[in-house]
Amino acid sequence: MFDPMNTLECVLCSRTYPLDIFNPFCPTCGNPLLFPLAAGKKKIYVDKDFSLDRYCEILPLKEINTDLFLGEGNTPLVVLKRIQEKFDLPYVLAKNETINPTYSFKDRGTAAAVQKAVSLGISRIGTVSTGNMASSTAAYGTKAGLQTFILVKEDISEEKLLATSVYDPFIIKVKGHYGELYRKSFEIGKKHNIYFMNSTDPFRIEGYKITAWELYHQLNNQAPDYIFVPVSAGGHIIGLMKGFQEMMDQGFISRFPFFVGVQAHGCSPLVQAFNAGSDCYEKLKNTHTIAQSISNPDPPGGNIVLKWIRKYRNTLIDVTDAEILSACKFLSGYEGIFALPASAAALAGLLKFNSQKKIDPNKQAVLIITGSGLKSMQSLSSVKNRHYNSTLDKLDHIFQVQLTPSS
Amino acid sequence: MFDPMNTLECVLCSRTYPLDIFNPFCPTCGNPLLFPLAAGKKKIYVDKDFSLDRYCEILPLKEINTDLFLGEGNTPLVVLKRIQEKFDLPYVLAKNETINPTYSFKDRGTAAAVQKAVSLGISRIGTVSTGNMASSTAAYGTKAGLQTFILVKEDISEEKLLATSVYDPFIIKVKGHYGELYRKSFEIGKKHNIYFMNSTDPFRIEGYKITAWELYHQLNNQAPDYIFVPVSAGGHIIGLMKGFQEMMDQGFISRFPFFVGVQAHGCSPLVQAFNAGSDCYEKLKNTHTIAQSISNPDPPGGNIVLKWIRKYRNTLIDVTDAEILSACKFLSGYEGIFALPASAAALAGLLKFNSQKKIDPNKQAVLIITGSGLKSMQSLSSVKNRHYNSTLDKLDHIFQVQLTPSS
Repeated sequence: MFDPMNTLECVLCSRTYPLDIFNPFCPTCGNPLLFPLAAGKKKIYVDKDFSLDRYCEILPLKEINTDLFLGEGNTPLVVLKRIQEKFDLPYVLAKNETINPTYSFKDRGTAAAVQKAVSLGISRIGTVSTGNMASSTAAYGTKAGLQTFILVKEDISEEKLLATSVYDPFIIKVKGHYGELYRKSFEIGKKHNIYFMNSTDPFRIEGYKITAWELYHQLNNQAPDYIFVPVSAGGHIIGLMKGFQEMMDQGFISRFPFFVGVQAHGCSPLVQAFNAGSDCYEKLKNTHTIAQSISNPDPPGGNIVLKWIRKYRNTLIDVTDAEILSACKFLSGYEGIFALPASAAALAGLLKFNSQKKIDPNKQAVLIITGSGLKSMQSLSSVKNRHYNSTLDKLDHIFQVQLTPSS
Repeated sequence: MFDPMNTLECVLCSRTYPLDIFNPFCPTCGNPLLFPLAAGKKKIYVDKDFSLDRYCEILPLKEINTDLFLGEGNTPLVVLKRIQEKFDLPYVLAKNETINPTYSFKDRGTAAAVQKAVSLGISRIGTVSTGNMASSTAAYGTKAGLQTFILVKEDISEEKLLATSVYDPFIIKVKGHYGELYRKSFEIGKKHNIYFMNSTDPFRIEGYKITAWELYHQLNNQAPDYIFVPVSAGGHIIGLMKGFQEMMDQGFISRFPFFVGVQAHGCSPLVQAFNAGSDCYEKLKNTHTIAQSISNPDPPGGNIVLKWIRKYRNTLIDVTDAEILSACKFLSGYEGIFALPASAAALAGLLKFNSQKKIDPNKQAVLIITGSGLKSMQSLSSVKNRHYNSTLDKLDHIFQVQLTPSS
């Protein structure tokens, strides 16, 4: 009997397999397996406080354990009016995922995966990460009382390590190729009964789906016209696209949003494959970008992203580090949103896209702001701490001299 | 004619005055003026997305400008089951205010005050702050397109300065006594038409009131039994208490929650006055605590806090730095909440209070977690970045050796 909560499918091979939480990859082509599209119209409990409760019927979870909640999701969608006016853009909105328990969208995925771990009685979880996913997994792991293993690159900054260490996980700095570490983690997980909830984990992707539903409800029951989202391993955009596909199938919406996946020019394997007309990305060797959180030279979800972006005639673009830094400054300096460079890539992508093909001013564009800049203060070393010095006595004089005429 | 939106009152002198946004202090006793308790049963729009929209009828604002929203408030209330079990406590919940646009409760107050500034056509705002209020005011100021002035102490850490600088305000480091700087800011504000929205600003306090209402709704239309909240200048606890007073007056609740205001032992002017039976606190000279965000030796709202805590037979207690640091570790290491030391004081307060007078196990206690630890990484320099080092080849061996038997 087909059990949708225990069946995964390969969207590239179109085959289904029973769920193996320790190795959710296609045995034929090696790409990540996903849950099939949820069938039948689902009920959404819009009056519930927590996002997993609200959208429980669209998730492959039999029950939701409220003791595991940290308050993930339910993030604000705010108007970026000053940026819109400055750059003569259509209506621009930011889905601010920095306002999550560990300050990135990763919490949505971790929350869903940890629910599954606890329901299965798994007592050990882990992840391979360079930053946000590490702190997210460590936080939810300890909340659930699970032994949590975090595998990081040997050159991780002290700043990022500390933001994960506070949750007291078992951290291992590993020397060696990051892509190999990613694959090795599943071997170790299978052997030692550790559920490695990595970037394209099928439960993570189900958690990311909820963002699509929140957007639908926040826009008064319609899909956005355009969505600009940074793309790294691919899990996040796959989750968002899957959410809107299910809304289409279930009759909630009749039009798919136009997705613009954004990569950093210095690490853009999917943009390169997309522009070359290829179905498969090629691993990159030498990459460099300030946007570390989207610097994945071998993105496991990449081929699914390529397939779906083509299916819906959407697009992938890249932006330079200079464009990213500039977007970062506009988000914080004009709109009060302190984003990671990787997150600001969404705005950089909108500006570039709009300069190439002017967006209809009656359309609305949503930027997914994936994570908080507070975790990447080091990348801001170039930001000058502009300030004046004064004594109490001289304070009034400074105001006298420096004030521009009041408007 | 009495206009409740333009009238302030002194709760100590029981006199009312017309609103002067540039100097909201009692001309007789010098204590902060507040808006009178909102009269008449108000409508709450629970289906609205944003907290200022939802609770607009309880606020002294004629209209709400949605363009100014950053997504403040609407924070989760989560169960702390592991801490509850470890310490044999009653039902413990955390109102996680770290999940705000600039990662502290200050955003609620800033959002309300900036609404007023914009509605009055004021183009310059400012604040005197050592940290969270600075970044909050800078973020909302730039979002609203206002010229924003941040006055900070000369010894502010680079870390904190950067978390404010990113929003590009006009920052002045001022040498001199902090209490004098606070008073001086109002003089300068009046002279130069700058609305200094400092810690006990009456609109800020109205913004903090909303937290009380959110708790009421999150607890299925009842007040919490106990509320533990860190106390510094006094604005936050005054806002919370005012919210519940209005709910009592309007007939929403019939029982006032039991407030426990928590100060750090090294800077506890209100606890000292409370224990001495005094109506007025005395300014402290030498203070020292790791909980910088609640280290105010001359808290402007202090006498109002003393009056209301006595009126409702609530209490104020202090906790040591060691108790605060320990609480910090339990919040992050057991519950996945990375709080500022000042915020962890709420948990330290609960543990101390419960050890002195065991709380009825059928009651529930809410901790207000005021701000994120990410802004105070320096105070965590004592946290050991515990980790192991490995190569890819040796990774499996490390797991073999280190794993405790799976439960």
